[in-house]
Amino acid sequence: MAALTCSASDLHSLLGGAANATAAAEYICSRFVAVSNHFVDTTYAVDNTYLLFSAYLVFAMQLGFAMLCAGSVRAKNTMNIMLTNILDAATGSLFYYLFGFAFAFGGPSNGFIGKQFLGLAKFPSPSFDYGYFLYQWAFAIAAAGITSGSIAERTQFVAYLIYSSFLTGLVYPIVSHWFWSADGWASAGRADGNLLFGSGVIDFAGSGVVHMVGGIAGLWGALIEGPRMGRFDHEGKAMALRGHSGTLVVLGTFLLWFGWYGFNPGSFLSILKAYGDVGSYYGQWSAIGRTAVTTTLAGSSAALTTLFGKRMLAGHWNVTDVCNGLLGGFAAITSGCSVVDPWAAIVCGFIAAWVLIGCNKVAEKFQYDDPLEAAQLHGGCGAWGIIFTALFAKETYVNEIYGGKPGRPYGLLMGGGGRLLAAHMVQILVIAGWVSVTMGTLFWILHKFKLLRISADEEMAGMDLTSHGGLAYAYYDEHDDAMQKK
Amino acid sequence: MAALTCSASDLHSLLGGAANATAAAEYICSRFVAVSNHFVDTTYAVDNTYLLFSAYLVFAMQLGFAMLCAGSVRAKNTMNIMLTNILDAATGSLFYYLFGFAFAFGGPSNGFIGKQFLGLAKFPSPSFDYGYFLYQWAFAIAAAGITSGSIAERTQFVAYLIYSSFLTGLVYPIVSHWFWSADGWASAGRADGNLLFGSGVIDFAGSGVVHMVGGIAGLWGALIEGPRMGRFDHEGKAMALRGHSGTLVVLGTFLLWFGWYGFNPGSFLSILKAYGDVGSYYGQWSAIGRTAVTTTLAGSSAALTTLFGKRMLAGHWNVTDVCNGLLGGFAAITSGCSVVDPWAAIVCGFIAAWVLIGCNKVAEKFQYDDPLEAAQLHGGCGAWGIIFTALFAKETYVNEIYGGKPGRPYGLLMGGGGRLLAAHMVQILVIAGWVSVTMGTLFWILHKFKLLRISADEEMAGMDLTSHGGLAYAYYDEHDDAMQKK
Amino acid sequence: MAALTCSASDLHSLLGGAANATAAAEYICSRFVAVSNHFVDTTYAVDNTYLLFSAYLVFAMQLGFAMLCAGSVRAKNTMNIMLTNILDAATGSLFYYLFGFAFAFGGPSNGFIGKQFLGLAKFPSPSFDYGYFLYQWAFAIAAAGITSGSIAERTQFVAYLIYSSFLTGLVYPIVSHWFWSADGWASAGRADGNLLFGSGVIDFAGSGVVHMVGGIAGLWGALIEGPRMGRFDHEGKAMALRGHSGTLVVLGTFLLWFGWYGFNPGSFLSILKAYGDVGSYYGQWSAIGRTAVTTTLAGSSAALTTLFGKRMLAGHWNVTDVCNGLLGGFAAITSGCSVVDPWAAIVCGFIAAWVLIGCNKVAEKFQYDDPLEAAQLHGGCGAWGIIFTALFAKETYVNEIYGGKPGRPYGLLMGGGGRLLAAHMVQILVIAGWVSVTMGTLFWILHKFKLLRISADEEMAGMDLTSHGGLAYAYYDEHDDAMQKK
Repeated sequence: MAALTCSASDLHSLLGGAANATAAAEYICSRFVAVSNHFVDTTYAVDNTYLLFSAYLVFAMQLGFAMLCAGSVRAKNTMNIMLTNILDAATGSLFYYLFGFAFAFGGPSNGFIGKQFLGLAKFPSPSFDYGYFLYQWAFAIAAAGITSGSIAERTQFVAYLIYSSFLTGLVYPIVSHWFWSADGWASAGRADGNLLFGSGVIDFAGSGVVHMVGGIAGLWGALIEGPRMGRFDHEGKAMALRGHSGTLVVLGTFLLWFGWYGFNPGSFLSILKAYGDVGSYYGQWSAIGRTAVTTTLAGSSAALTTLFGKRMLAGHWNVTDVCNGLLGGFAAITSGCSVVDPWAAIVCGFIAAWVLIGCNKVAEKFQYDDPLEAAQLHGGCGAWGIIFTALFAKETYVNEIYGGKPGRPYGLLMGGGGRLLAAHMVQILVIAGWVSVTMGTLFWILHKFKLLRISADEEMAGMDLTSHGGLAYAYYDEHDDAMQKK
Repeated sequence: MAALTCSASDLHSLLGGAANATAAAEYICSRFVAVSNHFVDTTYAVDNTYLLFSAYLVFAMQLGFAMLCAGSVRAKNTMNIMLTNILDAATGSLFYYLFGFAFAFGGPSNGFIGKQFLGLAKFPSPSFDYGYFLYQWAFAIAAAGITSGSIAERTQFVAYLIYSSFLTGLVYPIVSHWFWSADGWASAGRADGNLLFGSGVIDFAGSGVVHMVGGIAGLWGALIEGPRMGRFDHEGKAMALRGHSGTLVVLGTFLLWFGWYGFNPGSFLSILKAYGDVGSYYGQWSAIGRTAVTTTLAGSSAALTTLFGKRMLAGHWNVTDVCNGLLGGFAAITSGCSVVDPWAAIVCGFIAAWVLIGCNKVAEKFQYDDPLEAAQLHGGCGAWGIIFTALFAKETYVNEIYGGKPGRPYGLLMGGGGRLLAAHMVQILVIAGWVSVTMGTLFWILHKFKLLRISADEEMAGMDLTSHGGLAYAYYDEHDDAMQKK
Repeated sequence: MAALTCSASDLHSLLGGAANATAAAEYICSRFVAVSNHFVDTTYAVDNTYLLFSAYLVFAMQLGFAMLCAGSVRAKNTMNIMLTNILDAATGSLFYYLFGFAFAFGGPSNGFIGKQFLGLAKFPSPSFDYGYFLYQWAFAIAAAGITSGSIAERTQFVAYLIYSSFLTGLVYPIVSHWFWSADGWASAGRADGNLLFGSGVIDFAGSGVVHMVGGIAGLWGALIEGPRMGRFDHEGKAMALRGHSGTLVVLGTFLLWFGWYGFNPGSFLSILKAYGDVGSYYGQWSAIGRTAVTTTLAGSSAALTTLFGKRMLAGHWNVTDVCNGLLGGFAAITSGCSVVDPWAAIVCGFIAAWVLIGCNKVAEKFQYDDPLEAAQLHGGCGAWGIIFTALFAKETYVNEIYGGKPGRPYGLLMGGGGRLLAAHMVQILVIAGWVSVTMGTLFWILHKFKLLRISADEEMAGMDLTSHGGLAYAYYDEHDDAMQKK
């Protein structure tokens, strides 16, 4: 294959060895050097355009979470939950800037936690530019957004500020270091090539790193707080506490779908990259398109499965359930989106829908109350996604994206052996363990210090009145007779 | 004009013909080959970035439709119509993946229907990559979204599932094959150069292929179902059945405007393409910018025309009408957006507004009830857009975009003769005929088997209660006295 | 540094001067010319992709304004204010197309007002393409959107149409000419190098040009109209007139945040630009990423400061205040976003929050009623942002972005002297003066002709009923008993 590099000394002898030949060779080669440098600039510009707009899409998911959460709670707690979503982003900005990014990507490290780039010191560097920071920041705030759903409608606001900072600034960055940093002990792209089970964990966009982390954190929060008043009657029978706006639920769901195109295909981080020879129609841009397609199909398949599944089980065509099923499909495909074929994504979504239905049954049985089904959806479907990847990852795609180490493991059902599955089981256990130890302990301490749950009176009245200065809605004007009559 | 290709044998003789000269020439030329290949990669990366983000914008229109439709129906049918919008996307994903895309673009074909790429087999290929599939999928689901507005508030959910699948999977793909595939019998870019009336149909982003298809399908559905109860009194006088939320109408309209920047300028599919000589400031990127401007101006002009037009006719400044006028302007400019000048787009929008007002008058006269004015807006204004293009398409732009066949027809009023108009009249007739035969028949069969319209009781109660497990909104908490008093 | 340009005559002599050498040199150089031209095309395509999608994001802010405004007014004026936001965009399109853009960027000019490109004549040109027009149009309509918030709930619709056209078509374009056009008398990038105080004004994305213009216009409108009925009691004590939907406020705020990534980083207008040598990892793409980061941090810091500040002052965690604080942080950083370091952005946001709190105190004291706090937020925080830039602008960044004139002034606190601050004080005074003279006069004339404020009856009833054909919401169906009972 032709190289773009040009050696003046080589060319000099080829041009005849005369005195002028040296100058001629240098003249020609210096132009090729300039060409090469222009390609470097072009690649940076294209990749950053791709990465920045992907980051903006991921940020839009925060709006999606806010609307989904708002619609899923009762009207009296609307302002409270939206404020948590805004503050996930705002506190996340400061903490991720100060140390979160450093913990996550500040290599060289010991494999457990990074330490460079505190407060974006020495930024940008050849390895990381600001666009990369922004992209990772948008991921960090998403994890906190997941958890806020689980503990909605009954958590003290100060407790929320504490756990959100802790999760975004410390717990999540460390997990992302393990699996995504070039130094992480379980990373599939580990720089030193010393991979867990010879494979490392392929959690491409974070079914584990983001969704399970957020979901498990929410699980412990909701477990320790206990269910909302009225969620289970005195016989333990579940009572629906319907969210106050289906419109907001659908708005939020569609926004999350929209943003997921930044989350999954965006996780390639760059688009101008050839696979194999340059000059072919097939390259990272194709893998990115395929990832958008697998994402779409997994969500769609999960939505349709939920539609018909819940129609059989509950007797009607439930919109909220379809929305949750759709999101469960997305959470599941997030891990393997880049390394599986479209048909496999349909399988992924189909099973994700049943995983979510099953988790919800279990939750109800154990009187676990999660207003957004966040632990079930992000935790349960996220865990399924990790297993799914270990089963269906395709050899070609794995080698294209994670580098062609000979004999690299891939999906068990695709003939790639069990080592990827082993690594992924480790991921599930380790994430569950780490988040339980850190976030579980934190929630327990908050609980012991009476900082976690609001009082029964507050819960009855709703937090918007008691903590946030008033209700979200004022459709009718109290002092305005003309309106009252209408 | 300088070419980038480098011939070692040519250069060899130029360099003196010595033994070394061959090697020198090969050395130099191999570097130019590398440069050329890097440009190939760069072009793929840039074009796919452009296409993918355009596809995401088009997808955002589905959220726009959902909000617009939700706001335009009564509160009791909100969940129903939003579910149809979600399922347009979800079923569309599976059916367009399985066969819709194959029917639309699977050439070589007989000109009527494609047949390659079923289930994305042999994907990607030098002609189609995944990003292209995603972009076309987003278009396919938009067509179904249009139709769901026409038959809102009175259609059985199962009927909806059937027609939506049929439209997205078969009816729409075939129409898009005719006009957009390189094999389509009426395509303006037909590969064999054998063009309808020596011209082919210039329906750039689909005033006909998408909007008329969706609108005519809706027309038959709404006609066969008949109007909603209470829409016309016993004397046949029209009664307004106001939508339940103007906020959602405006939200949806703005989201559609936002998404239309993916729909129209995105239909170029690529942005890194020179027109004429390379190295000029003018190229496809300029045409894309111009298309964004014509789209903006047509919608704006239609909105303002509607504002003042309806002020004169109805006596107040109506927001919903302005929103519909705006969308009518967009639907009209969609066909010719790339081949007309900005001033012509203002004309397009001005007339589109009156077309919509006129269609609504006719609809009311014939007691045709379309809760979203979808048939009038997408069908009527879409048809006007097709004619508009045949009148105002500019020679330069047509040749730049559709290829410089000598003597290629262009807009009648621009001096380009009547052949483009003839082709466009054929398009209107053929789309109207095809959709009427297929979708009209389907709705009629559903009607005959009592599968189309819900019962009067259900219509009174609203579908959210009867089919979807409850109302969309619960602003006040029934079991919560503290709230009741507020 | 290697140049890409290739001189055949130079190379000819280097290749030995034989007859063939000329041809060889031409052969080789013509290929480098082709390469160079391909880079030109690539740069146009990449930059336009970047600029167009940035423009779409800025346009999305119009939706953000619509939702924020709608949520911040009482339900009875929802349709009215949303209509003004739609019409800002629609009338803005026509007027900015006809003459606004020409006034703003139609150089060569006298430094006060441009005059080329009326109706986009001679478009595109080597200096301006359609994407640039679209981007600037999206800015122009934002300014009008700001003002509509100040005078909400009490302004005649016709007055709105007049001031909006005047602002978008004339007042704003002239200000943007001064500071952003290559001919503008106060521009920091003035083509002739004759800079105000040897510096010119660094108002990168428009804290002054957009936000102060919109805010000062709103200030005069609201002052001349006077407060809404009931906003201050007979003793002059302020009464809250709560907006009708906190959900819409949060939705709008997040959409504005999302769109601000087009507003601030997008103001670079291009991304494929090296700083210094080509072929380095650091270039305009890095500065763009940094700008996205400073924007994020300033908003976040302002939001958190407001959260705790208002908690101390008012005793609860107020969501609307946090939203406004966040937006105040964005409005402030807009001026200096590209030329300051991330840590400085945190300072910027921190102070912006207190500026907004202070302005609101002053407003209340003087019984100034601005339903959106638009004058305080965009005017006050915008002015602070202009000063902030003059204090914290970093030498390196200023030279990279505005060109390396030796000894160019930069931030006072960064050791760059006081000349930038002097220029920026002039900017504040000149904008305040110009907008006061033009818009203040216009509002005063409208007031004198009784065209500005609606009647007391209309204000009581709400404009949706009196001018727009009905209320925005109909959650309960009047004629439908089944619904009434629910």
